[in-house]
Amino acid sequence: MKYMPFRFEVVKKDRTSQARLGWICTEHGEITTPVFMPVGTQASVKSLTPEDLLDLKAEIILCNVYHLYLRPGHEVIKKLGGLHRFMHWELPILTDSGGFQVYSLSNLNKVVNEGVEFQSHLDGSRHFLTPQMAIEIQEALNSDIMMCLDECIPYPASYDYALSALVRTTAWAQKCKETKSKDTQALFGIVQGGMYADLRERSAREIIEVGFDGYALGGVSVGETKALMYEMIDATIPCLPGDKPRYIMGVGTPADLVRCVGSGIDMFDCVLPTRNARNGMLFTSSGKVIIKNARHAEESIPVDEHCDCYTCRNYSRAYLRHLYMAGEILSARLNTIHNLHFYFTLMKEMREAIHEDRFAAFSAAFLQSEENYNENET
Amino acid sequence: MKYMPFRFEVVKKDRTSQARLGWICTEHGEITTPVFMPVGTQASVKSLTPEDLLDLKAEIILCNVYHLYLRPGHEVIKKLGGLHRFMHWELPILTDSGGFQVYSLSNLNKVVNEGVEFQSHLDGSRHFLTPQMAIEIQEALNSDIMMCLDECIPYPASYDYALSALVRTTAWAQKCKETKSKDTQALFGIVQGGMYADLRERSAREIIEVGFDGYALGGVSVGETKALMYEMIDATIPCLPGDKPRYIMGVGTPADLVRCVGSGIDMFDCVLPTRNARNGMLFTSSGKVIIKNARHAEESIPVDEHCDCYTCRNYSRAYLRHLYMAGEILSARLNTIHNLHFYFTLMKEMREAIHEDRFAAFSAAFLQSEENYNENET
Repeated sequence: MKYMPFRFEVVKKDRTSQARLGWICTEHGEITTPVFMPVGTQASVKSLTPEDLLDLKAEIILCNVYHLYLRPGHEVIKKLGGLHRFMHWELPILTDSGGFQVYSLSNLNKVVNEGVEFQSHLDGSRHFLTPQMAIEIQEALNSDIMMCLDECIPYPASYDYALSALVRTTAWAQKCKETKSKDTQALFGIVQGGMYADLRERSAREIIEVGFDGYALGGVSVGETKALMYEMIDATIPCLPGDKPRYIMGVGTPADLVRCVGSGIDMFDCVLPTRNARNGMLFTSSGKVIIKNARHAEESIPVDEHCDCYTCRNYSRAYLRHLYMAGEILSARLNTIHNLHFYFTLMKEMREAIHEDRFAAFSAAFLQSEENYNENET
Repeated sequence: MKYMPFRFEVVKKDRTSQARLGWICTEHGEITTPVFMPVGTQASVKSLTPEDLLDLKAEIILCNVYHLYLRPGHEVIKKLGGLHRFMHWELPILTDSGGFQVYSLSNLNKVVNEGVEFQSHLDGSRHFLTPQMAIEIQEALNSDIMMCLDECIPYPASYDYALSALVRTTAWAQKCKETKSKDTQALFGIVQGGMYADLRERSAREIIEVGFDGYALGGVSVGETKALMYEMIDATIPCLPGDKPRYIMGVGTPADLVRCVGSGIDMFDCVLPTRNARNGMLFTSSGKVIIKNARHAEESIPVDEHCDCYTCRNYSRAYLRHLYMAGEILSARLNTIHNLHFYFTLMKEMREAIHEDRFAAFSAAFLQSEENYNENET
């Protein structure tokens, strides 16, 4: 089954907030927004098969260009029929541009107007990534949604530095758009501007001027306070067109998701549920469970008694603790299933709340319970 | 559904060899022999869920008393409803007695007539394991088939050492039998005797004299040559009663399984398919595949084009190599599924050959292809 080229529709706006229900159509399937995208960095959502993800009702995953470019190489994946076929995942895939990882993972990265030079974190080999290449790589992978190469800056950064990165990001966005050669893949622009509201607004204007299928907020969740992050979000969102999807990159906690949906964000990705799962931190309706804690050693109850995920239906906290303490591989898998189910359930509850025009109430109740939640770590 | 207490029937004897088809009934289900039991050392067949094992048509798994006694502790598992419930595996479980691991994994083990003192490989704590305890632990776990505590000796070992271990093993077998308190769990005796045929015969006579639900060959595959191992097997089997299951512990390669089935062995366990899977060594109908080898980097074919396992149906060698090189958890799982499928398929083919009175021909053809196989590592 082939779907239409990329389309987005706002299906319903919540009357009590900026939240909205949306629908995205891509070559590999449809997505209901707000949506959470599990991260499959190296063409695998760690420990899960695609069937596990389908059972969890995942509709789209994210893969990282930086990693796949370095290993196994985008040309290899192209030869093998593209990323979907390579990893046996038939639903939509969003690929990032590699930008964020170049700055966060690689050594000795050096940005010039033409692109960014960096050393591989794997073998120290030197590479030069241009905006054109970022698109060529993503076209080789044949992802459904591509991201422009942007210049990510650390926090804190001076106004002048943030401005120069913004200017470069706009120039690169233009190059990315010019390079794009296929109708079947969408391309999103990324708003930068550091932690300066006026630069965020300027970046948004410039990126919209270039014109993309969707708009992302980049350069957040890089060490700034939550208050500052929300300030930047609030400065950016009103600048974005209502008829395009809005994606905040690398965010976030359950509370972040609720707050951002309330501000009108449609798409999220974050390693938090999957990485925390591997570290034995489980999200529940009544607080975080740190599975290694001794108190769980003989507990016959599931992680969350209100959860109907595969893990909670079949395993006790005591068994999950045992697997974790024993270093069993199955620990990562069962914990990942639980945490992703928690995230997907939260997204579903938010979509229902939007549909029923009660998102503000949902959000208030959730954020209140979150406060208890943080006092309630077990 | 509750099954009958332990029963074993020889269903069919092959007319061309000593191979036989059998049926075992336990409280948790039925088993068709010859059977291969995947190893779930710490209450988990590494990287797989019980549902994965059911998909593979596993009928029984093995768990290790040594590990479960140390962590999480058999009393914890008993409180949580026994091992089946703890690990969410509803079919039969065989537990070993802890003996082999005490000798192979722990430090400073010291055998006396009452039992064996050892230090935990986890934290150096001191423990004393007696034959009575070995049964009490296995009864707490509520496995379907328990094993007697035996004294395992290294290879090579002197005749006198082998003899003294044999004598102790018989005395411990008697104590294990006397300790056993539940009809729902079967108990197997273990034949020792080192690499001395006359001691193997004597051990078999003594263990049979005590009388068990089944008989195992212990102390093989401990560093001796294949020729010597088969010599010991051939010395032991004729001493064992035909109406009880015969189990060879810790064996073996695909060729070992074929040869042993031809000698009349009914049950096998080995970490080889699962451990090798995690190390990237895959069994195929045309030789071993070492998945990290560069030649697989761009191969779009499955591991084995004649295999219909989940892994071969859905993934290329190139993807499996990528997962392995990238250290992805999914690598262990996909490889384990493939290797266990290979072992289970081999067992099924052997059962069919026995059923059709052509085991000798099957065995000859298989062992011939095995020789090519060893020359054909890829």
